[in-house]
Amino acid sequence: MVDTLGTHLLVEYHGCDLAVLDDIAAVRTMMRAAAEAAGATVVAEVFQPFAPQGITGVIVIEESHFSVHTWPECGYAAVDFYTCGDCVPQRADAVLRQALRPDHVEVMLVRRGLKDAAGSLRVEEHTHGPAEAEGRKAAG
Amino acid sequence: MVDTLGTHLLVEYHGCDLAVLDDIAAVRTMMRAAAEAAGATVVAEVFQPFAPQGITGVIVIEESHFSVHTWPECGYAAVDFYTCGDCVPQRADAVLRQALRPDHVEVMLVRRGLKDAAGSLRVEEHTHGPAEAEGRKAAG
Repeated sequence: MVDTLGTHLLVEYHGCDLAVLDDIAAVRTMMRAAAEAAGATVVAEVFQPFAPQGITGVIVIEESHFSVHTWPECGYAAVDFYTCGDCVPQRADAVLRQALRPDHVEVMLVRRGLKDAAGSLRVEEHTHGPAEAEGRKAAG
Repeated sequence: MVDTLGTHLLVEYHGCDLAVLDDIAAVRTMMRAAAEAAGATVVAEVFQPFAPQGITGVIVIEESHFSVHTWPECGYAAVDFYTCGDCVPQRADAVLRQALRPDHVEVMLVRRGLKDAAGSLRVEEHTHGPAEAEGRKAAG
């Protein structure tokens, strides 16, 4: 078995562009662009609006999956980029920072499928802070 | 905003029943049963086999999503039970312990959408150990 079977980014975007969070076409476009940026191969997708607001989207990729759940009333999106193989999920995060223009982003990187004495899951990084980097500058 | 918008269980099942891990009908049945046990309302699902082996499945629920990725060659399944509202994702885990009969289970419970000084994501529990509880006893 390889050293790790999966890299899972759990990302919290706060203070997002409200126009995007409840626009299913925009959310779909953003997630497809994220999959492409990460180097993933898309095999299926589901995007579902909820009443009175909010969207859930899942993209199944050959290398696992990406998901998004939006709470427009909170300016918040909860996203997972779960990949194996040669994908680079951090590039998907960069796409969402541009699309959502959040004020604040928190990222937890979890390694999965490990086979060492410490177990199968390991939180390798956990960062949070203002998101004025890629998103706002690139979009401005 | 409520105290937390989401409860996300990341679960690693090792030493699973190999007959289940590559049986797409069995995996679908198991995941639907897990959604029902958790009290979730299913809105869509995707189950995809991979060559030479392995299955990815995602169930979109009103309360977020469940996902499974199996590596039969490793006896391993990586599962996410991500819920909001009144769902009880731990009951979904109990269903999978029965279905997969793993030797070892590792669970990380992450709270999401928090709005406190420590941030939006918090690892609230992280447990691992032999899985002789619900799964093997109930099935035996």
